[in-house]
Amino acid sequence: MGLTEIRTVGKVSFDKPASEQKGLHNRWHPDIPFANTIKDGETVKIECLDWTGGQIGNNDSADDIRNVDLTKIHYLSGPFEIEGAQPGDLLLVEIMDVQPFQDQPWGFTGVFDKRNGGGFLDELYPSAAKAIWDFEGIYCTSRHIPHVKFAGLIHPGILGCAPSSEVLATWNRREGELIAANKLDRIVAQPPEPINAHTGAAEADVAEKVAKEGARTIPGRPEHGGNCDIKNLSRGSKVYLPVHVPGAKFSVGDLHFSQGDGEISFCGAIEMAGVITINFKVIKNGVADLGLKSPIYIPGPVEPQFGAGRYIYFEGFSVDQHGKQHYMDVTVAYRQTTLRCIEYLRRFGYSDYQIYLLLSCAPIQGHVAGIVDIPNACTTLGLPMDIFDFDISPSGLAKKLDMGSCAFETGVKEGRVTAGGENSEHSFGGGMTYKSSVVDKVKDAVSG
Amino acid sequence: MGLTEIRTVGKVSFDKPASEQKGLHNRWHPDIPFANTIKDGETVKIECLDWTGGQIGNNDSADDIRNVDLTKIHYLSGPFEIEGAQPGDLLLVEIMDVQPFQDQPWGFTGVFDKRNGGGFLDELYPSAAKAIWDFEGIYCTSRHIPHVKFAGLIHPGILGCAPSSEVLATWNRREGELIAANKLDRIVAQPPEPINAHTGAAEADVAEKVAKEGARTIPGRPEHGGNCDIKNLSRGSKVYLPVHVPGAKFSVGDLHFSQGDGEISFCGAIEMAGVITINFKVIKNGVADLGLKSPIYIPGPVEPQFGAGRYIYFEGFSVDQHGKQHYMDVTVAYRQTTLRCIEYLRRFGYSDYQIYLLLSCAPIQGHVAGIVDIPNACTTLGLPMDIFDFDISPSGLAKKLDMGSCAFETGVKEGRVTAGGENSEHSFGGGMTYKSSVVDKVKDAVSG
Amino acid sequence: MGLTEIRTVGKVSFDKPASEQKGLHNRWHPDIPFANTIKDGETVKIECLDWTGGQIGNNDSADDIRNVDLTKIHYLSGPFEIEGAQPGDLLLVEIMDVQPFQDQPWGFTGVFDKRNGGGFLDELYPSAAKAIWDFEGIYCTSRHIPHVKFAGLIHPGILGCAPSSEVLATWNRREGELIAANKLDRIVAQPPEPINAHTGAAEADVAEKVAKEGARTIPGRPEHGGNCDIKNLSRGSKVYLPVHVPGAKFSVGDLHFSQGDGEISFCGAIEMAGVITINFKVIKNGVADLGLKSPIYIPGPVEPQFGAGRYIYFEGFSVDQHGKQHYMDVTVAYRQTTLRCIEYLRRFGYSDYQIYLLLSCAPIQGHVAGIVDIPNACTTLGLPMDIFDFDISPSGLAKKLDMGSCAFETGVKEGRVTAGGENSEHSFGGGMTYKSSVVDKVKDAVSG
Amino acid sequence: MGLTEIRTVGKVSFDKPASEQKGLHNRWHPDIPFANTIKDGETVKIECLDWTGGQIGNNDSADDIRNVDLTKIHYLSGPFEIEGAQPGDLLLVEIMDVQPFQDQPWGFTGVFDKRNGGGFLDELYPSAAKAIWDFEGIYCTSRHIPHVKFAGLIHPGILGCAPSSEVLATWNRREGELIAANKLDRIVAQPPEPINAHTGAAEADVAEKVAKEGARTIPGRPEHGGNCDIKNLSRGSKVYLPVHVPGAKFSVGDLHFSQGDGEISFCGAIEMAGVITINFKVIKNGVADLGLKSPIYIPGPVEPQFGAGRYIYFEGFSVDQHGKQHYMDVTVAYRQTTLRCIEYLRRFGYSDYQIYLLLSCAPIQGHVAGIVDIPNACTTLGLPMDIFDFDISPSGLAKKLDMGSCAFETGVKEGRVTAGGENSEHSFGGGMTYKSSVVDKVKDAVSG
Repeated sequence: MGLTEIRTVGKVSFDKPASEQKGLHNRWHPDIPFANTIKDGETVKIECLDWTGGQIGNNDSADDIRNVDLTKIHYLSGPFEIEGAQPGDLLLVEIMDVQPFQDQPWGFTGVFDKRNGGGFLDELYPSAAKAIWDFEGIYCTSRHIPHVKFAGLIHPGILGCAPSSEVLATWNRREGELIAANKLDRIVAQPPEPINAHTGAAEADVAEKVAKEGARTIPGRPEHGGNCDIKNLSRGSKVYLPVHVPGAKFSVGDLHFSQGDGEISFCGAIEMAGVITINFKVIKNGVADLGLKSPIYIPGPVEPQFGAGRYIYFEGFSVDQHGKQHYMDVTVAYRQTTLRCIEYLRRFGYSDYQIYLLLSCAPIQGHVAGIVDIPNACTTLGLPMDIFDFDISPSGLAKKLDMGSCAFETGVKEGRVTAGGENSEHSFGGGMTYKSSVVDKVKDAVSG
Repeated sequence: MGLTEIRTVGKVSFDKPASEQKGLHNRWHPDIPFANTIKDGETVKIECLDWTGGQIGNNDSADDIRNVDLTKIHYLSGPFEIEGAQPGDLLLVEIMDVQPFQDQPWGFTGVFDKRNGGGFLDELYPSAAKAIWDFEGIYCTSRHIPHVKFAGLIHPGILGCAPSSEVLATWNRREGELIAANKLDRIVAQPPEPINAHTGAAEADVAEKVAKEGARTIPGRPEHGGNCDIKNLSRGSKVYLPVHVPGAKFSVGDLHFSQGDGEISFCGAIEMAGVITINFKVIKNGVADLGLKSPIYIPGPVEPQFGAGRYIYFEGFSVDQHGKQHYMDVTVAYRQTTLRCIEYLRRFGYSDYQIYLLLSCAPIQGHVAGIVDIPNACTTLGLPMDIFDFDISPSGLAKKLDMGSCAFETGVKEGRVTAGGENSEHSFGGGMTYKSSVVDKVKDAVSG
Repeated sequence: MGLTEIRTVGKVSFDKPASEQKGLHNRWHPDIPFANTIKDGETVKIECLDWTGGQIGNNDSADDIRNVDLTKIHYLSGPFEIEGAQPGDLLLVEIMDVQPFQDQPWGFTGVFDKRNGGGFLDELYPSAAKAIWDFEGIYCTSRHIPHVKFAGLIHPGILGCAPSSEVLATWNRREGELIAANKLDRIVAQPPEPINAHTGAAEADVAEKVAKEGARTIPGRPEHGGNCDIKNLSRGSKVYLPVHVPGAKFSVGDLHFSQGDGEISFCGAIEMAGVITINFKVIKNGVADLGLKSPIYIPGPVEPQFGAGRYIYFEGFSVDQHGKQHYMDVTVAYRQTTLRCIEYLRRFGYSDYQIYLLLSCAPIQGHVAGIVDIPNACTTLGLPMDIFDFDISPSGLAKKLDMGSCAFETGVKEGRVTAGGENSEHSFGGGMTYKSSVVDKVKDAVSG
Repeated sequence: MGLTEIRTVGKVSFDKPASEQKGLHNRWHPDIPFANTIKDGETVKIECLDWTGGQIGNNDSADDIRNVDLTKIHYLSGPFEIEGAQPGDLLLVEIMDVQPFQDQPWGFTGVFDKRNGGGFLDELYPSAAKAIWDFEGIYCTSRHIPHVKFAGLIHPGILGCAPSSEVLATWNRREGELIAANKLDRIVAQPPEPINAHTGAAEADVAEKVAKEGARTIPGRPEHGGNCDIKNLSRGSKVYLPVHVPGAKFSVGDLHFSQGDGEISFCGAIEMAGVITINFKVIKNGVADLGLKSPIYIPGPVEPQFGAGRYIYFEGFSVDQHGKQHYMDVTVAYRQTTLRCIEYLRRFGYSDYQIYLLLSCAPIQGHVAGIVDIPNACTTLGLPMDIFDFDISPSGLAKKLDMGSCAFETGVKEGRVTAGGENSEHSFGGGMTYKSSVVDKVKDAVSG
């Protein structure tokens, strides 16, 4: 009588490679077979790997970050059949809890090397760096970023239902056009890629099709959500997800102990493996009834609250660090806002890389402020003062504390390439790298 | 003994044109004379006009919005001398209160005609529209947007210290380069403009110089803040402003009873005239000590709070309404996010223009969510459910209510141009208009 | 068109005694004539005197507190006729705003002399003391309690509708029985008292009746609310008041800029004169429909918020300061809780009287914690750390600051009777004094 | 490298009686041996039984509540030695997390029979009743109280350090005097009681001494805290506990998934077994440095927040339900406040017992409002509207829903004794019963 232990419908193993686990997959495609079945109205637990599938270690070197193989990421748990769900329905996903595994009470935040993934500030901070975070209940701390402790706003970075064939075709066309038109020296989107595609329990012929057509897990997309990295989609939140295929084929992964708005360093949340507890309900015909083109959600009631007056807010505008005026570019403005915060925190002894890591994962508020006064978009970034164990309020000259160092890749120290560093051989995992010409330029710049 | 009435250092008149009042000005320039003097540590009251200087009436037509003269706006109060302030200091501005005038308990929100100012969504909503808001204490309501009531997050849209000659030169060079390089069919920035320049109490020669060189009040700029339109820079906030000239030459204006993140309809806050109460303190050498390149602020403790779980959040991505994929463009993503919200609220009976107006001025939360997963930037918009007097939560089919209408310009009804409308003669005030070719295209589109 | 200035339906004068102003009264009685009429649905402004009717000055002596005439207090504004209100209806009172008068930006908090009014801790702190508070917008500070600044949680101490004859008779019977049975050396309730009864605009015969029968304004009572001193019945709150007589006869007064839970020093809020803006709506038959025996209310959304983790909480139990165990007595427990807080703050240099005053008026949270574990009731008191401009968190030995002094009555210094003090002649105003035998004992104690 | 699994220093078994587990005890005494040792600075996990030690089942009868043996409760985990702690130090206990056991995701709330324990409202509600709560992550629901769901404000009901011999003697003297002087028909305190005393790992002679002298776990006491039942002493809170004996001898138990202020039904929280994660730090000489006579605490940042305007507040005064006026009695006032809330919620279809149970365990805010206006103390109770899945706001006539029923003891239905019920034989466990004369009177009343 009464509730007994909550059923776990998705399990992961740490004893064999993610690519060999049939309840995982790393592409979005309607043909990946169901990993398990969940009743309409049921609450279940789903285990998830960290987003790199275990490529990162609890140690003091960022070489694993530098070398991460970006074709071997985002092994999502699922897809799950939700009984009764049909195209046109909404799947109401209520996140009852997210927890790390009891025997793995730690996570990591990384800055990717500009030559392998990069990040929002890679023009300024091109080296790989890392911070390990220890979890004790609701709180986390890092030996790599001292004098900081905060409660996790814990959430999944990725969740969504599988696309239909039509939706998938739209994605591939849309992003393909962007790639075709690209004139930047950057890779601008990830087309389907058979290498290291993991298609779950698919038989060979389906597997081949999925590998060839399946959408990559980077980025999020409007039709289903997916890789949204929304920090307050946390404990207690209700998400309304459009259903595109019979049974919904819901998948989830990329758990974050905490994240700041923007997740700016790309591997920027506190990435972790763990367990998510979800209640599922099917809302028949919900897409039309609610008029939804993209998911909506209602946050939960338990996010850490600091009080409005316990934030320092930084302002940034669409004038870049070279003094160039951009026209109404919120992306430029938000980058400037993060730089203003880095400059401010420097004076307490933190290195730029430590702050870059911290802004990626701490619960900072990134707001669009004004976007109508040409040519300057203005954004703001709210930094909670209470995550520091010393006073960071703006009251005159600061005293520098001993802040140690975050982890760096070999050949780099405090963000500077050391003697010999430029010659070290990098064997990146591949995936979302720069075009080779860019890599060469960067190499020149870094070693120059 | 004890505090007596707080001194009012800046007064405005409603009996004569703003351009004739010597304590006002509408350019940023180091040579505009002081309007009054304030002691270091003093708390004073400063009266302010609304940002149009009184061009808008409390009525049910948006013709005044359509015809607003954009060269006659932003008559700021000041500049004030803060005793002892020197370049390199910070001016700590604590906003003790902002109030409308007792005998003018109302404000307005406008959508500008695409041919005269436009706004964030003017491609979709090109007509002028308006909502009048009545103030009763902390709350506002509008006969043009029924079933909504909320507490004001009241704040100044513009505050800052005058630029030095060097800073001013930087602005004019920087924005001039943008204008010179412009290939869009839009005006991308406002160069200095002698027409209708109001230079305060300046004598003729100085007035001429200021009119010729003075920076426009649109946009905000990193070196001093200015026109930032930051919604939570409200009652109780402390702003740290860099000082560039002796005496600081602080100015303030463009009071808002409330505003949403982005102020998307351009005239998007609840614009009002009123009184701001400020305490001023000089922090010697603060710019260097705090390492500031742009203002920072700490919000006040009294902003309206709804509880995290009382928001509906919408998600938007950098795929535009034509299905085109953009590369990591937060501006595009935020526009999509606002459209998702408009689509959602339609089903309760509101017109798109009503919602556009509402999202501009209600305390919505616009967040940068994910900006590292190529090619999709993701933003979120949190809409507080408790500003409505009916239930807007996502629970199936909605019942349409009688929502009346917002005010439109002549010849437009519910956002559609009516018979004859396309032939009506528009005599816009000028200023930030579109290039003529664009206007022609728009005319074609509207009348087509 | 649109809202014009809000109508003021009750005005007060500072040029003549409260007792001569016909729109005021200081008794609850159904026969006091209407002072003015308000429409159902209307929003109006009502001016109010401070609760002492102007007996207290903005100065540095507490002699006026010591000598306050307690028969001349609580001159309420009203009673107002609300059109259409009938017995059995509810009056929905929405508090749109409360503001001090612009030319009187100050208030006061008093500790009453134990011989004239006393307070919650008068056994320990028998002398009269006072703090004057200066208002600057939302904030207040006091020269008598340095290093403290906070935003007001501004509210009326008293509001309610007139009792019917039956309700009034119940009150007089009920409190009369308490007085008749009293064996304490304290005055336990205030019976009707013709002396200094102010019956508004009543003609002589009615005035006499009212003076003879009218209920005193101390205390609050379940049937109508009245003098409740509820700190979060502030800006934006909706109160549902039972209507007992035709027209409701609503009255309001005793405005507080801020108050702590308990208002412990009796004159414990920051008492002020000012203006309250209220919207009135009649809910027909609401008493029965909602099943109300006492008022209910929904707080407003703008109360100052500090964040849960920005409070220090103190615990108190029903063991008194003499070590005596009481049985489940929440009153004893709350007194102990306040004493724990006083002891804690002493170490920063504040005197006990300063803290007593501060706890009375600052937004402290007084909670019932456990009331079922015999014999100890447990209460908690949350003190917001952010009202201090220095760090009061529990981190080892504190540094004492120069805290000056609050105001005391003549002959008392820092809460101790000085030489000559015991002989000073006190001529109290009368009213809620101790029984004479108690006064004698206190005199002995104080001078002994 | 890095944190591995957190050490569990206290384990409980569900396979043998609590009284046989040496790491538990149910008396406060300095001589109970250490159960384990914890380092200064260490974070550990401690398992705890529910407060009845497993006497209550997950079923639909309240007979187990009626028959609970009150001498077999509060088997606390500990006492633990904190290395380095000495009398005069403070023990800083930071609650990193509290969780139910994964395989026991449920808890219970009980109303005790007036003849066996009773509760705050037992004069009105004398029968035993029960609600079972299911836990799904942060949320709980009950089949016995439908249409309610809320996030737990999870916390330990009891934690503290052992008393010294002197402190223990004070307790026994103080409470003994109360018992000796008692003239009520109630048991007013629990003296030491050898029957069913569990003295942990104590050898026979010590066990006998502890059983004879040891303080009972009901109530909380000022010198060490103990059984405080403070609802917001939850995740993330820091408690400062006075140390009275070498090694501190810290104990903890009585975990609550949630509780309302007052825990009014006595077994009123959502009682559960589970695991608490705590970090311990010793603050040398802290008692004197901080001037503490009782514990203080700083709440954590993650308590569920609803927004100030999402509560309905009820008011209660010290006039009891018989119309009798009490003098400044907060206990009477708070009882009335809870009754007002019960009356209000009735109209939605809930039974009084269901509401009584709900107010005991949901996160209601119980505030002291005014305690200085003789003779009426006033308290308020804030009920969060968002824990209901329908609208409980005060808007006219309510529609009754089918609310089912909570569990009752045999012979009682919906709180009324049924035919035969008065004759049913009750064999209560003993402990905190009424004096026999009271039981007889109650029997008369119930069956009459």
